[in-house]
Amino acid sequence: MSSNTFKPTKRSKVKRQHERGKYDHASVHAVLDSNPMCHIGYVIDGNPYVTPTLQWREGERVYFHGSSASRMLRTVREGVQVCLTVTNFDGFVLARSPMHHSLNYRSVMCFGTAHVVEGREAKEAALKIMMEGLFPGRWDEVRGNSVQEMKATMVLAMDIEEASAKVRTGMPIDDDEDYDTVNSWNGVVPLVTTYGKAEPDPRNLPGVATPAYLKRRKYP
Amino acid sequence: MSSNTFKPTKRSKVKRQHERGKYDHASVHAVLDSNPMCHIGYVIDGNPYVTPTLQWREGERVYFHGSSASRMLRTVREGVQVCLTVTNFDGFVLARSPMHHSLNYRSVMCFGTAHVVEGREAKEAALKIMMEGLFPGRWDEVRGNSVQEMKATMVLAMDIEEASAKVRTGMPIDDDEDYDTVNSWNGVVPLVTTYGKAEPDPRNLPGVATPAYLKRRKYP
Repeated sequence: MSSNTFKPTKRSKVKRQHERGKYDHASVHAVLDSNPMCHIGYVIDGNPYVTPTLQWREGERVYFHGSSASRMLRTVREGVQVCLTVTNFDGFVLARSPMHHSLNYRSVMCFGTAHVVEGREAKEAALKIMMEGLFPGRWDEVRGNSVQEMKATMVLAMDIEEASAKVRTGMPIDDDEDYDTVNSWNGVVPLVTTYGKAEPDPRNLPGVATPAYLKRRKYP
Repeated sequence: MSSNTFKPTKRSKVKRQHERGKYDHASVHAVLDSNPMCHIGYVIDGNPYVTPTLQWREGERVYFHGSSASRMLRTVREGVQVCLTVTNFDGFVLARSPMHHSLNYRSVMCFGTAHVVEGREAKEAALKIMMEGLFPGRWDEVRGNSVQEMKATMVLAMDIEEASAKVRTGMPIDDDEDYDTVNSWNGVVPLVTTYGKAEPDPRNLPGVATPAYLKRRKYP
């Protein structure tokens, strides 16, 4: 096994359309870095839960966060297994039969044990990575977190133990005989996510500068 | 309990920012109907998995689908519990301290036991609801599914047993004293998903009409 590839396991191996599965670090990281939004799967009393939150990455470590009061974070702080899934739905694939319809997507499933980032310095360092990744320069524009605020925020870190990325791109793949006979419009209807026009808080101080990160349209 | 409200349970009750939680059917359905993309949580051998797929609704019943070969569908066909989560990330909320940063979102978590929709007619009826919801008129434009294709497609149905919606909208909520002293730009950076320009398959038959559903920009 190459050191820059996650070993496909029973848990991470892509079963369906396995030729779309990728296990190299670069492919897994590319999907993680393409979208800060994720869904965290965890188990309480044998039942599955899926909670949306933000994730960010530092090397092989993925961070996610939330309130100290949340069900998810009260559970995973005990060190339970989580599945962190990031999905970009890139478009609908319209094919010549209902069954050949598909989606274009880039998704990743990461498995590991999450633990709480303890200590104010480590927690602040992790939060700063997130904010600077999303809104470069903003960390120094706002006031610092208070001790109380830091207590209310929980940051979780998960070293990726197993992971697989799955990617579909391109046109429909139809049965040979259908290309000459089916008269429908076929192709890809892309889904595009962009930043909308920024909406300033009416209570902003007068003359506040517009930061460069508000001028972007391309997400993220 | 009103008949048009899901009873908040240990599983579905919104713990964090509980004032954002809603349990009435209309709120739950509104989020489900706002986005066909979902993440399904399920448990195998005690471990959580989160798989992205498409969902659609008929009354209190939510459908989702995939390949008969997928890990997810081979597992849930046995009737295990699933958590179906739909999330719209509507924007970043930029506040005056790092901790008050937030997201605007509309999300729903639905809990229930999924079962396989058996029988060609029931399966086709369910698939038609999905396709006609997404691309009205398309079902009759393409050729019908073959017997073999129907075997390769699995449709799952889940009657919603418990559910909660959670919604955040609007401006940051900062500490009183920060409004007069923090000089950052604050507000909402919306995230907007739209349909991009449709990309026709080069192998479409000549003179194929452009269906009305390709002229939409607003998603879904």
